[in-house]
Amino acid sequence: MKAKKIINYLLITKVLGMLMVLLGVAILSALPFSYFFNPAGINDIRLFSGQTEFFPILLSGIITIVIGGVAAYLARHASKSIGKKEGYIIVTVSWVLISLFGSLPFYLSGYFPSFTDAFFETMSGFTTTGASILNDIESIPKGLLFWRSMTHWIGGMGIIVLSLAILPLLGIGGMQLFSAESPGPTADKIHPKVQEMAKRLWGIYVLLTVVETALLMLGEMGFFDAVCHAFATMATGGFSTQNASIANYSAYTQYIIILFMILAGTNFAVHFYALNRQFKKIRYNEEFRFYLTIIAIVTFIITIGLLYSPIEIGVEKAFRDSLFQVVAIITTTGFVSADYLLWPTSVWIFLLLLFFVGGSAGSTGGGVKVVRILVLIKNSFLEFKRLMHPKAIIPVRVSRQPVPQSVVFVVMSFFLLYVLTFAVGTVVMSFTGLDFISSMGASASCVGNVGPAFGSLGPVSNYANVSDIGKWILSFLMLLGRLELLTVLILFSPTFWKR
Amino acid sequence: MKAKKIINYLLITKVLGMLMVLLGVAILSALPFSYFFNPAGINDIRLFSGQTEFFPILLSGIITIVIGGVAAYLARHASKSIGKKEGYIIVTVSWVLISLFGSLPFYLSGYFPSFTDAFFETMSGFTTTGASILNDIESIPKGLLFWRSMTHWIGGMGIIVLSLAILPLLGIGGMQLFSAESPGPTADKIHPKVQEMAKRLWGIYVLLTVVETALLMLGEMGFFDAVCHAFATMATGGFSTQNASIANYSAYTQYIIILFMILAGTNFAVHFYALNRQFKKIRYNEEFRFYLTIIAIVTFIITIGLLYSPIEIGVEKAFRDSLFQVVAIITTTGFVSADYLLWPTSVWIFLLLLFFVGGSAGSTGGGVKVVRILVLIKNSFLEFKRLMHPKAIIPVRVSRQPVPQSVVFVVMSFFLLYVLTFAVGTVVMSFTGLDFISSMGASASCVGNVGPAFGSLGPVSNYANVSDIGKWILSFLMLLGRLELLTVLILFSPTFWKR
Repeated sequence: MKAKKIINYLLITKVLGMLMVLLGVAILSALPFSYFFNPAGINDIRLFSGQTEFFPILLSGIITIVIGGVAAYLARHASKSIGKKEGYIIVTVSWVLISLFGSLPFYLSGYFPSFTDAFFETMSGFTTTGASILNDIESIPKGLLFWRSMTHWIGGMGIIVLSLAILPLLGIGGMQLFSAESPGPTADKIHPKVQEMAKRLWGIYVLLTVVETALLMLGEMGFFDAVCHAFATMATGGFSTQNASIANYSAYTQYIIILFMILAGTNFAVHFYALNRQFKKIRYNEEFRFYLTIIAIVTFIITIGLLYSPIEIGVEKAFRDSLFQVVAIITTTGFVSADYLLWPTSVWIFLLLLFFVGGSAGSTGGGVKVVRILVLIKNSFLEFKRLMHPKAIIPVRVSRQPVPQSVVFVVMSFFLLYVLTFAVGTVVMSFTGLDFISSMGASASCVGNVGPAFGSLGPVSNYANVSDIGKWILSFLMLLGRLELLTVLILFSPTFWKR
Repeated sequence: MKAKKIINYLLITKVLGMLMVLLGVAILSALPFSYFFNPAGINDIRLFSGQTEFFPILLSGIITIVIGGVAAYLARHASKSIGKKEGYIIVTVSWVLISLFGSLPFYLSGYFPSFTDAFFETMSGFTTTGASILNDIESIPKGLLFWRSMTHWIGGMGIIVLSLAILPLLGIGGMQLFSAESPGPTADKIHPKVQEMAKRLWGIYVLLTVVETALLMLGEMGFFDAVCHAFATMATGGFSTQNASIANYSAYTQYIIILFMILAGTNFAVHFYALNRQFKKIRYNEEFRFYLTIIAIVTFIITIGLLYSPIEIGVEKAFRDSLFQVVAIITTTGFVSADYLLWPTSVWIFLLLLFFVGGSAGSTGGGVKVVRILVLIKNSFLEFKRLMHPKAIIPVRVSRQPVPQSVVFVVMSFFLLYVLTFAVGTVVMSFTGLDFISSMGASASCVGNVGPAFGSLGPVSNYANVSDIGKWILSFLMLLGRLELLTVLILFSPTFWKR
């Protein structure tokens, strides 16, 4: 029994080492793009010659593979006993590690002003936030831009498995609710189920990415831009290869991106059912219906608001801009097709509310998650009924299933912790010299993994002018939000490290 | 059994009628001040002569007494059976009714631009908010100013009994936690307990008001100003008789007001124990300690912040201004001794957080209440412990007593409803044409019954320029916040009116 209580650091090292080898390989996958898009050809590619990125990417990949490989090799005899504590440590540390090593290409190439900036951009990538410090994205070599978009895609891949297969087991924030199957997987059948589920979900993820790339190429995008935007869309990330984000693309391209943002913000279990023609299960999925309803209602309100505002805009454009920004923010993608800060306050205030909704559970979207909001709203209404009938047990029902009171409790605790994190983030950011609205926006945007914020960090601005300490704080907020807060915070609890 | 299910409207009418007779008498109590402070003497007092208030006050009092008296007389044979539903209706309707009739002196005298303004000011008074539409308070006759301060005092009187004796019985928002005795009064012993408790608590309230008046008169205030400020302090209201609120008074007066704001924001059960020399019970009162701790910590932070800011200010003045504003906002009094919007963002942002704390339960303070915040914080920390030990039952403890999970649940629901009300209030206010920060400030300030807000509604501004519809919305928000949300909202629930 004693052996079980000691944290299995050797296994953690082995898992993280293997993860880093994979990361290194992923970094190297940017090389073809670097080579192909280098206008001067391979002869001009020099090591550390200021503004060239081929060898820095190569070096970063090799460093990562070697360090990861050595670690995994040294820990190869680790016992396979894995418990919750190991799970928490692996999840949080892996996001920090891949952000550290993933920022090497940016830093070593010299295109990013400082290591802080490179790390911020990478953490923003892997957490699928999409907040950028780049003033002129188009001046960055294609190899680096490809890697930048790929951090999103890898992050999204991690999140799907995490939210649908791993976090429910850890019992984080009512994630039991969100697992693909109901009732969710239980601890004793974790291993086969996680692997099998991961394969299926990743299959869907890859498939949707391929289809989006193809559809974008039917528009005005070339292969490179299409892939990068598909990566950013499916991960609900938001990094674009263009300074103007999606604003200068055609209506066709914008609608395609809207469609795939909606799909990316949908519980992947829904896609799974769709592929298996289990449409009945989709119809009963109340989160999915609620998610679409919110998008429809808020888009309607904002469209009407824009048409009645002093801004001169046609009906189609008003609808498209509204729908695009509503979907971009609720799914926490953060692509920009219009500067919503130029809209009247009473219009963009609805977008601010969406910062606190987020995508569906089991999607790549961040934020609080639609199903949690649904549980909270239903529970609030039931409070009145409960006041009238204090002795009756009146459970919240989602998708016709009663939600145990204990899960509602945990969902409420999660939301409160989310609001608290947002509030503390706002206060701390105001100390770095940001004004009030920008502090609030940055905190809400980073905890929710959205990307653009408000005030000086709006949709047509970026995070370049945030202080260094501010960038580290925001990086931490992105990590917190992406890993459902508790996964990270529990590592700071003394109870965790006891015995 | 059937008789019990029909709402006893006759009894409601009788109770409300009696309440209005009392209100009418209270209105008449402003007459001596009107007479005494009329510079021209009684000969100059004309009925409806534009700018004179003696007869309008007299008329308002008589109208209120007559209508109330007739209603009570007609309903004199009402059966005494009173249930929860009657309780809810009486509580909400009485606050609306006294605000309607209480605004008559303001409206009939012609000193208030419109009935909307008069009603806003009166609702602000009775809910002990202290938000004003008056641009030049000092130009208003003393009789009206006395009545204005008295609305606070009457409102505070109602709140003490409501929060310590009535709401715990209705089971609102975990109010069971806050009752004077633990375990709280149960339904079967309501009647004698409520009456007895009300007498004791009002005794303390009157005593503290008298002592504060006396202490203020030892400073530079005359009897009139001293009484008005004592009324506003003890009710945690915030109406002043001066345009500059408390800013131009001496340090002595400011410290006296600070002391009594702290006392007014303390659970009146603590005062009760103090008078009975049960100091042990006070020492175990965790809410009281937490309340003082928050005041001490935030005052310390803001004092330091002010000393290191570009504002030139001495140590004592920095400490006094900080302490005054911290106490004025946490207790939801809303007196102003300094324009905190001139302080750096990172300083006043702490005041914004205090808008969501509020006074202690069982005090006259509004907001979420300190004990609820305490429960929420403790519960958040315990979530980590619960994650590590999913099978253990780990209760929140307040004042060494375990808090039932069901009460924690209700406290969380309350807080979420509070945040939702604030968010909806912000959105709705932005529709009336207010900018974002002002909408947020107005919503937070009115739901929390504080008074001053942020943006264009800051401490040296007032609510005069808010649109008419905005004033009605804010009046409703004040009512919602003051009556713990659910008491009012339940009347809008279809379940309430069924059968």
